[in-house]
Amino acid sequence: MTTPIEDLTLRLRGFVAARDWERFHTPKNLAMALAGEAGELLAELQWLTAEESAQVMADETAGARVRAEVADVAIYLFRLADTLGIDVVEAAHAKLDEGERRYDVATYRGIARKAPPLP
Amino acid sequence: MTTPIEDLTLRLRGFVAARDWERFHTPKNLAMALAGEAGELLAELQWLTAEESAQVMADETAGARVRAEVADVAIYLFRLADTLGIDVVEAAHAKLDEGERRYDVATYRGIARKAPPLP
Amino acid sequence: MTTPIEDLTLRLRGFVAARDWERFHTPKNLAMALAGEAGELLAELQWLTAEESAQVMADETAGARVRAEVADVAIYLFRLADTLGIDVVEAAHAKLDEGERRYDVATYRGIARKAPPLP
Amino acid sequence: MTTPIEDLTLRLRGFVAARDWERFHTPKNLAMALAGEAGELLAELQWLTAEESAQVMADETAGARVRAEVADVAIYLFRLADTLGIDVVEAAHAKLDEGERRYDVATYRGIARKAPPLP
Repeated sequence: MTTPIEDLTLRLRGFVAARDWERFHTPKNLAMALAGEAGELLAELQWLTAEESAQVMADETAGARVRAEVADVAIYLFRLADTLGIDVVEAAHAKLDEGERRYDVATYRGIARKAPPLP
Repeated sequence: MTTPIEDLTLRLRGFVAARDWERFHTPKNLAMALAGEAGELLAELQWLTAEESAQVMADETAGARVRAEVADVAIYLFRLADTLGIDVVEAAHAKLDEGERRYDVATYRGIARKAPPLP
Repeated sequence: MTTPIEDLTLRLRGFVAARDWERFHTPKNLAMALAGEAGELLAELQWLTAEESAQVMADETAGARVRAEVADVAIYLFRLADTLGIDVVEAAHAKLDEGERRYDVATYRGIARKAPPLP
Repeated sequence: MTTPIEDLTLRLRGFVAARDWERFHTPKNLAMALAGEAGELLAELQWLTAEESAQVMADETAGARVRAEVADVAIYLFRLADTLGIDVVEAAHAKLDEGERRYDVATYRGIARKAPPLP
């Protein structure tokens, strides 16, 4: 049994191989592409108020653009993780384990300030 | 049966709720956090050559930092998608369907140039 | 007579040459460093409301951090422009000339929507 | 006597005022726009090798696109600095003063590694 991320990762690998694009897909270049797509996502939301941004999917045109940008970020994230041999979900859980120790509920409830790094 | 992304998304929701951070997690703010983490990933790779970037996980210290940045990007991507009601994997497949039409293999084999948008 | 930007650009060149860092300062790497610093700037503002962001310089600690991030973005922008042979201020004026044609006052007054590209 | 940056900053203020766009130009939104444009700059360079990136201005079409993206980054940087009351060149010099103490020539010659923060 494969997970949806594994299926997507394999499809991406095939897409790239069929076009002989592996030489372009170094971790460095993929990180640039990922950040570039994150920038396009910003551009969709930059002039909206916080409240408007929370309603952006209700507008069909804007919603479709936001969904496409989220998809582009995801595509490069999974490609990058594949070239680096990183399990994205496992790495996220490990980071959350750390976050739970670093941002203890009693101290950080309702506070967005950055915690000092763990000792 | 839940997928690993669904499990992670639910854990993230709980993490945020326990700290009363929902008010900070507007789509606008989460897109900023995502782009900020993508920027930190760039910082890990910016002075490396393409070849060095392909070997970055072989170095224990640098590899751990890259893995942590990939995790941070993933965390904000899944949080953002959750607040927007977007299925990340489904959206990525839809974008790949479009990519297959737009970047036909015969024309774009070995070429990294951007294709014009579909009619 | 030199301009302040020319003086800064020359100082940056000397700083880089003294450390033998020219090999790292390709346009590609400098664009990554610029985007990375723009990401750190985002991180300073991401959890603030619009109103709080307008008052950020009134807080001594946060203000100093924002000023340092603005400086980092500027440093990489001027270094990048120097390696590419671009006059930043001249290029900005040329882009504004285009902006004045594209965003005519009558149509875009009070509207943040993106204009279609010029014919 | 005004500097070229002061002239540009005043022109930008007028451009924004004529369109009644001040309400959109909070520091938070301008930082997003800056990062978004930095992302578009990345997109111009992401598939190029280091060597190709150093020659990008020799190609008329690619060169014009890179120049336009550098201009967009500059426009939002100067707008942001204006709304925050930051003198960009002065802030960059202050950061370089710090950089000279932090990256002493003897230790960091030819080394791109990040220095620990100053005590």
